[in-house]
Amino acid sequence: MRKQFRDLASPAAARETIASLELTPDAETVPLADARGRILATRVDAEIDVPGFDRASMDGFAVRARDTFGADEADPIELDLVGAVHAGAEPDVEVRPGTAVEISTGAVMPPGADAVVIVERTDERDDSLVVYKAVAPGDSVMPAGTDIAAGARALGPGTRITPREIGLLSALGLDEVPVRGKPVVGIVSTGDELVRPGGDLRPEAGQIYDVNSYTIAAGVEDAGGVPKLYPHAGDDYDEMERLLRQAADECDLVLSSGSTSASAVDVIYKVVEERGELLLHGVSVKPGKPMLVGTLGEGSAYIGLPGYPVSALTIFRTFVAPAIRDAAGLVEPQTATIEGTMAVHERYAEGRTRLMPVGLVTDGSGEMLVYPVDKGSGATTSLVEADGVVEVPADVEYIAAGETVSVQLFSPDVRPPELLGVGEDDPALSRLLDRVPSPRYLAVGSREGLRRLRDGVPDVVVVAGDNRGETDAVELGSWTREWGLVVPADNPAEVTGLLDLVESDLRFVNRDTTSGLRTELGNAIAALADERGTTRHELVEAIDGFDHGTKAFESPARAVLTGRADVGLGLRETADSLDLGFVSLGRQSVSVLANPDRTEKPSVRTLESILKDSDVFDTLVGYERD
Amino acid sequence: MRKQFRDLASPAAARETIASLELTPDAETVPLADARGRILATRVDAEIDVPGFDRASMDGFAVRARDTFGADEADPIELDLVGAVHAGAEPDVEVRPGTAVEISTGAVMPPGADAVVIVERTDERDDSLVVYKAVAPGDSVMPAGTDIAAGARALGPGTRITPREIGLLSALGLDEVPVRGKPVVGIVSTGDELVRPGGDLRPEAGQIYDVNSYTIAAGVEDAGGVPKLYPHAGDDYDEMERLLRQAADECDLVLSSGSTSASAVDVIYKVVEERGELLLHGVSVKPGKPMLVGTLGEGSAYIGLPGYPVSALTIFRTFVAPAIRDAAGLVEPQTATIEGTMAVHERYAEGRTRLMPVGLVTDGSGEMLVYPVDKGSGATTSLVEADGVVEVPADVEYIAAGETVSVQLFSPDVRPPELLGVGEDDPALSRLLDRVPSPRYLAVGSREGLRRLRDGVPDVVVVAGDNRGETDAVELGSWTREWGLVVPADNPAEVTGLLDLVESDLRFVNRDTTSGLRTELGNAIAALADERGTTRHELVEAIDGFDHGTKAFESPARAVLTGRADVGLGLRETADSLDLGFVSLGRQSVSVLANPDRTEKPSVRTLESILKDSDVFDTLVGYERD
Repeated sequence: MRKQFRDLASPAAARETIASLELTPDAETVPLADARGRILATRVDAEIDVPGFDRASMDGFAVRARDTFGADEADPIELDLVGAVHAGAEPDVEVRPGTAVEISTGAVMPPGADAVVIVERTDERDDSLVVYKAVAPGDSVMPAGTDIAAGARALGPGTRITPREIGLLSALGLDEVPVRGKPVVGIVSTGDELVRPGGDLRPEAGQIYDVNSYTIAAGVEDAGGVPKLYPHAGDDYDEMERLLRQAADECDLVLSSGSTSASAVDVIYKVVEERGELLLHGVSVKPGKPMLVGTLGEGSAYIGLPGYPVSALTIFRTFVAPAIRDAAGLVEPQTATIEGTMAVHERYAEGRTRLMPVGLVTDGSGEMLVYPVDKGSGATTSLVEADGVVEVPADVEYIAAGETVSVQLFSPDVRPPELLGVGEDDPALSRLLDRVPSPRYLAVGSREGLRRLRDGVPDVVVVAGDNRGETDAVELGSWTREWGLVVPADNPAEVTGLLDLVESDLRFVNRDTTSGLRTELGNAIAALADERGTTRHELVEAIDGFDHGTKAFESPARAVLTGRADVGLGLRETADSLDLGFVSLGRQSVSVLANPDRTEKPSVRTLESILKDSDVFDTLVGYERD
Repeated sequence: MRKQFRDLASPAAARETIASLELTPDAETVPLADARGRILATRVDAEIDVPGFDRASMDGFAVRARDTFGADEADPIELDLVGAVHAGAEPDVEVRPGTAVEISTGAVMPPGADAVVIVERTDERDDSLVVYKAVAPGDSVMPAGTDIAAGARALGPGTRITPREIGLLSALGLDEVPVRGKPVVGIVSTGDELVRPGGDLRPEAGQIYDVNSYTIAAGVEDAGGVPKLYPHAGDDYDEMERLLRQAADECDLVLSSGSTSASAVDVIYKVVEERGELLLHGVSVKPGKPMLVGTLGEGSAYIGLPGYPVSALTIFRTFVAPAIRDAAGLVEPQTATIEGTMAVHERYAEGRTRLMPVGLVTDGSGEMLVYPVDKGSGATTSLVEADGVVEVPADVEYIAAGETVSVQLFSPDVRPPELLGVGEDDPALSRLLDRVPSPRYLAVGSREGLRRLRDGVPDVVVVAGDNRGETDAVELGSWTREWGLVVPADNPAEVTGLLDLVESDLRFVNRDTTSGLRTELGNAIAALADERGTTRHELVEAIDGFDHGTKAFESPARAVLTGRADVGLGLRETADSLDLGFVSLGRQSVSVLANPDRTEKPSVRTLESILKDSDVFDTLVGYERD
């Protein structure tokens, strides 16, 4: 059957195929208290009058209007006061000619009365009432059915139930509501290497945590469906086949992702072909080329998603979520797509529609800037470093900086960050960021951070050491950190300085070359080389692991902690927090520099005010202030 | 204590007082699967490297890069193929100089290897591998921790958890997430006359269904709180006091609404004064003047809402929801407020801030028009006929048509209707409207409908009979309905026509004067008067109940059904559907007329196409087509 699908389908054809799947579940009845956010399945007509009785709409006295004709301040009329009716009580008195009955707002009009004289226009004298104003029949009375009458159309089918609809349904006395069913979406994760979050991970055996199951489950909920997670089948293909059949029986739609092994794909083919029909195999879109679409017999449809998390969420959002929303009766939230301006240009020429992951940031004037995020499809952090995707048609090879693009947010709840920072990583910086509302920080290192600032994308850059160069930036504040060599707690190799690294047979773990810490180490080695009359290169060659750069400030220390290394480049704070030993090599300043066009942006000002507030700063940073 | 609050507080002071209430609950830990929509309570740093191992990022062969140096298409090099590593498996082979190991995407790099040659650049020959391209160390390898390294900042406190954050938390292996608690909001409803929806209603005793409890509960959920409904205490004040104390102990905030009786207010005062403090009594805002704000001891705050549903929801939305959102860590959704243009002018001069209920409709060019909705505070249908409120400052007495105003929607999910219709009510029309997406129809009668069309607000008006007059409108379609007298099933009074109403002692129920049906009846009576040489007035005077007009097309028939009347004005369709008898008096056309500026609006075109499609139309209307 695969042979039928030699050509990749167009994205439009894929959308059409998926739209043709029958996912709509039966309607159901839910208690009113659970109806919020649901969609009415049928029209609701009023079955009762609201109010159900002629109702006093003011505090006062129920009268026969004709008894008051002619009354005014100068010439009031007097009526016999014969009783009272309160809200929630059945009248036990009739209003005969010449009489009046005290009545409170919301109470039933007593028989005989056809109007209410408000209390401010009367006086009570013993058992009689003095009326200073004539009223007409119906005055201050809300007749039965005025609000809504029995038989009238109250709410139409397809209405989304918000608090106000719950109000009207309550007024009609309904404690159950007929609503559209929520499509049940099964999620089957395939891939021998996947472990459910919370489970024990064996990285040495190539295991990784399963990212897609819960991510897609949350996306299904956003789209109005009910996710149903099936257990991992691992590499047991009989079990996987059994799970697919079970999911097909229990769900309106079955999704799978991450079938990296050919055998897993074969099992899926087998079940689809035996029970249903393969409708589409492969779409001309990046990412997502290998998407499978088919049916699994009468009751269920099947869509196979890519394995990489960003690809899976992108394809889900673009192709699958609309079908789930449609089955659930929901419309796409207005917040799901926003417009922005490309901050940099982008080239791409693979001849496929591209769903380009992008990040968002507002510039100094509040304009929304869009920049491509490409960490490689395998990176799960792209999920939080990108905000959504721009759909670039197959025939567009170049998007210029300044062009307007439409960004499909990963989910309607995604909000662009209020502060975009890039640069060096640092534990004090992490704490500072905790005080800024909605920051995004990309720890790309000092050097790359400065490069990005020159491109004009970030709000701030954080630079360690004296590496600022010619960059045009406004310093918001700085502090000093102590750096050196992290060693085991008791320093068994008796490391005292850099020379031990060169002269002893110690396994060293470095930071990567983008890090300001690595630059500082390089400078210290150069100084040592001068001192000893040798070259930097010679010393570096003698250090086992000098070229083994790691990504984050704690990584070398953690290598020491787990015994993978004897010495790591790091900070005193890190050594202290992990209960490791530390050999100080010096101090390094860390500076926060603002993009000169963004100094008035509220989040930048917040960051600046924290940096300038000694008390807050000292508590957060715990280092020396520059 | 009441004496302290002689002056009404300003809305700003009320907001400030409410903001000062301590509603924030403790943080809690929830399973990852339930974390969507929650707010991270603390920063999450990575505790593991992702990936946890050096990972092949392409299918190919793991090699020592230096073994491939110099290889190209013309001069390939050959390596011994010594094994294979697949994703999810621990390598059982080492890459020694001169060897290669087959590797699949996602698999662990075997010891000794530092690069991957992609499969497309190789050939396999027996047990050896031909390599056509040199690779550098690190090529096609994703080192451990590249995605995110242990110790790095992953997500900050206050982050809203959407599917993408769930993805990153999954990648870190977390199956539990520390989140902000949701404030628990108790809802105590007071008022002797209230019955919970679903309960038996005794309208003759002035009972009405409790609208506010479920409505406010849904609003609490929208704002990120957990509503907790307490049972009605009715008029048992000891029980009410007990419930208030219980709610204060169990909730972060207690809301009550609809305390119409002085005794109920006294109980609330008593509990607030004994356990906490009354902070505010009365706000200079319409609606909502009697708002109470206080504390109920250590753990809980108290706010008393107005009793009328629109007032209660308005005050909740304006003053209470922000405090709940703040306690829950949420920001107000962007969709909660929209801009529009006043369609008509509005005067108001009471010297208080006014929260004016308004409806929304888009005009022909897509502009959002805003019009005031004032059905009286007691009407629950205003809940669905208005979309939100415009806050009009106390010193603004006049808003001109064409002014831009900001509308606070009743809840973020509220969407303006796509079609706004006004005019006659009719059962066939109800079915037609079911086919139009998101309509709002105000059954104000033919005459009032035409008046509103002349004001330019609605998209369409529905008119019964030949009452169009000079109105400029475009007819979209029409049908004919049969009208007459609805009588009990066996027609016990042997009614044969209008004359029986005049000559016999029958209790009649009419429609109200805005209805086209009432106009038709008036015409028939005028004709009868002519025929009998008398006046219309004389005949009408002889009909018992002629002036008793009801709001909806089924109301007179329902009066007959329940024995409250002997004869009612109505339609054959209504009589048939209620199994009543019917005496035909004639036929009346019902026309759908479009606002001439809105004929191109999508919803108007949808309605027109249904009216013009004979098959659909006949099924829906079941009447004769004009």
